[in-house]
Amino acid sequence: MGIIPVIISGGVGSRLWPLSRKKYPKPFLPLGESGTLIGATYARAAGLDGVKTIITVTNRDLLHLTDDAYAAVAASGVSNAFILEPFGRDTAAAIALATLHAGQAHGPDAVLLILPADHMITDTAAFAHGVERAEELADQGRIVTFGIPPDRPETGFGYIETDGGDVLGFVEKPDADTAADYVASGRFLWNSGMFCFSAGTMLNALEAHCADILSATRAALEAAQVSTSGDRLDIGVDAETFATVRAHSIDYAVMEKAENLACVPVSCGWSDIGSWGAMAELAPGDGKDNHAGGQAILQGSRNCYVDARDNLVGLVGVDDLVVVATPDATLVARKDHAHAVKDLFAQLEEQDRPEAVEHRTVRRPWGSYTVLEEGAGYKVKRIEVKPGGRLSLQSHKHRSEHWTVVRGVAIVVNGDETLTLAANQSTYIPCGAKHRLENRGEETMALIEVQCGDYLGEDDIVRYDDIYGRS
Amino acid sequence: MGIIPVIISGGVGSRLWPLSRKKYPKPFLPLGESGTLIGATYARAAGLDGVKTIITVTNRDLLHLTDDAYAAVAASGVSNAFILEPFGRDTAAAIALATLHAGQAHGPDAVLLILPADHMITDTAAFAHGVERAEELADQGRIVTFGIPPDRPETGFGYIETDGGDVLGFVEKPDADTAADYVASGRFLWNSGMFCFSAGTMLNALEAHCADILSATRAALEAAQVSTSGDRLDIGVDAETFATVRAHSIDYAVMEKAENLACVPVSCGWSDIGSWGAMAELAPGDGKDNHAGGQAILQGSRNCYVDARDNLVGLVGVDDLVVVATPDATLVARKDHAHAVKDLFAQLEEQDRPEAVEHRTVRRPWGSYTVLEEGAGYKVKRIEVKPGGRLSLQSHKHRSEHWTVVRGVAIVVNGDETLTLAANQSTYIPCGAKHRLENRGEETMALIEVQCGDYLGEDDIVRYDDIYGRS
Repeated sequence: MGIIPVIISGGVGSRLWPLSRKKYPKPFLPLGESGTLIGATYARAAGLDGVKTIITVTNRDLLHLTDDAYAAVAASGVSNAFILEPFGRDTAAAIALATLHAGQAHGPDAVLLILPADHMITDTAAFAHGVERAEELADQGRIVTFGIPPDRPETGFGYIETDGGDVLGFVEKPDADTAADYVASGRFLWNSGMFCFSAGTMLNALEAHCADILSATRAALEAAQVSTSGDRLDIGVDAETFATVRAHSIDYAVMEKAENLACVPVSCGWSDIGSWGAMAELAPGDGKDNHAGGQAILQGSRNCYVDARDNLVGLVGVDDLVVVATPDATLVARKDHAHAVKDLFAQLEEQDRPEAVEHRTVRRPWGSYTVLEEGAGYKVKRIEVKPGGRLSLQSHKHRSEHWTVVRGVAIVVNGDETLTLAANQSTYIPCGAKHRLENRGEETMALIEVQCGDYLGEDDIVRYDDIYGRS
Repeated sequence: MGIIPVIISGGVGSRLWPLSRKKYPKPFLPLGESGTLIGATYARAAGLDGVKTIITVTNRDLLHLTDDAYAAVAASGVSNAFILEPFGRDTAAAIALATLHAGQAHGPDAVLLILPADHMITDTAAFAHGVERAEELADQGRIVTFGIPPDRPETGFGYIETDGGDVLGFVEKPDADTAADYVASGRFLWNSGMFCFSAGTMLNALEAHCADILSATRAALEAAQVSTSGDRLDIGVDAETFATVRAHSIDYAVMEKAENLACVPVSCGWSDIGSWGAMAELAPGDGKDNHAGGQAILQGSRNCYVDARDNLVGLVGVDDLVVVATPDATLVARKDHAHAVKDLFAQLEEQDRPEAVEHRTVRRPWGSYTVLEEGAGYKVKRIEVKPGGRLSLQSHKHRSEHWTVVRGVAIVVNGDETLTLAANQSTYIPCGAKHRLENRGEETMALIEVQCGDYLGEDDIVRYDDIYGRS
């Protein structure tokens, strides 16, 4: 039985708005050349010696994004268990769920490696070496933390005070002077949020330090809806029971109280990419320290980070800025104030702005749709269906739809008819008609949909049948 | 015979990119509450005492934009003459064209008032008062300049040195120290580019100082295609002849050499809105000196000017910036470097970027189209047709079109059929079919067009008939 990585995927990462959105959170951002952060985390986990199974704890609405991200990195010979939360209850509950499941499935000696889904690690070998050392300590009944030797007096992280391999204490985010003292002392490491322990050790710790969280998550797991498919397990945590779980972080609930802690220092090029400022530091610069991605054009500007993958962005005479342009929202922030993007995001939420929730492109289990325009009485979308993708058999009470295929071949159920439509062919779905869209081809199918009606919300849908369990 | 305003409309105004584009230049920008700059100029001219006719000199491709702008300000009882240049030959030629026409139509004593189409004047009464004084001087055979008392040592303008009402000399854009001396002396006024003179006086001056420009423009005007409609005159200057005209500014060609100059100082809230910095100065600020237009959300930012009429723009912790977001391009510039937007624009032109030429919305005589998306083998547009608007009878060699009406009623010629389509009705125009779109209703008609084909350029069009003379 090798080590069991547990990928914990939660939180929006609102400091990375406008790329991150509530329904498209940080683990799924296409950052860097290696694809998504969660995909890179999965590949890193699957590449560790002896890994046969990986547990992922995530929100159930993010499962199809997770599947896509994992499929993109294609790890062979690894089975997957997905623990699907109906809503977040912080890291103590998430780790309790994973530990309870692993204890049942693999016994109390199974060693778990907790990995946040949205961190970056550039030195995989150093990481793997640290994991080996942690596994030995976990076998000896220790709860192992991974400490990152700090290279700057960062005030955005918690620190672990160590004395050789022993943990003297956890300290919360310090002020600037204290952080500088910490770095100077050499005894303080950043708390990376990665942990390693045996299932039995953690269950004992949860029982000792937050028994209520353990018992409530156990009940939610016992009431879960479980489905298996090949070597894949989906565990849908029961919402009613899970609602009673106290939300608490594993640091507060266990780490600050436990006495059998150990710390493994790892210098593995770790970053939590906590803000656009951190992202900018990771990006290579030109001769003027600018990093200009996409369609950025700079004139007399220095030390700027620009992400213009969708639209042209011109900079004139500016320094030290982060500029991120998406099709519906643009951020302009001073690099050293980039942490305050969180406050801007809070403003957007207060104002119920859709730009806080979703991108113009919304991914679905069958593919995606992109809103091209909304006007009075109409909406225009591009709908893309993956090979094998099949939308639900559905109807609408308030809108008709005009479909024109522009790529691939669509199989369309429209009332009593089934049509095969290639590019440059179209059909009309009258209001109330049962219809369905499917791609049986091997390339992505795309069509342009023009909706007409007095109400055009996504919730005007009656589903009669759905292969993704949404009817 | 009252004074004859001559509105000179030329130049891109590239410092106001991304709002200004080559084919949508500065006079047509929707700046401020009063609509376009050229519309405001026209209204100001029409409102002067005794004005019966207005001459406009502009590029012929901009005529329909000019018509729209003038229609929006609806000046009654004024007849219009449009002198349509095939291309620009600078201000000496433009003024020569207007003066030659006015001299022929109204005699040598007709007094002309030259007004650049892209300046802003906030105190109309002071302006009108200055014009009255200038008219008296023009009647006495003087070429009158309008000088603006400077309120800052601006290095972007030419200055007029005066001694009471007499002009001692014209000086080009000074350096900062010289400009400061000018302002301190009290003898220097900004050269506003507005002039007043009788036709006879200017014809004599042109003959004396740049006879080649006068004779070549006279030839181009004599070869012009002239059409009249009611009290409207359209004079299409002959391209072949006009190409021989030397391009020169009126300042160099005449003003710096003429001896019968006079200067009328006018304090009329004048601005040439020469850059986004100037635009920002005109805009009212909030408590932190921010001017946030449209969907701008600011967090800890000061002294910023944001134009976010189309998209959400979030600012975090930044000062002294200009941010202008359009659907396809965003500018981020330091306010006091905003003049260098011109250099950014030059970069865009070198790179043949479409964002230098047109907006996603392109205006046509019959209305407008907006490109919503372009992909491999397809393009999606919203097409809007004004009441009474009628596209040419046309066909395409490389594309088919799917039309779905979303507002108003479309009259569609499609091959041998004529269809009447209301919202939620559609038709398919096969490749090669003759077709035409018309709006006979009283509200704007809008449809979504999905083009499919192997080539989707605007130049794939065969026009069989066109009410705007384009076939």
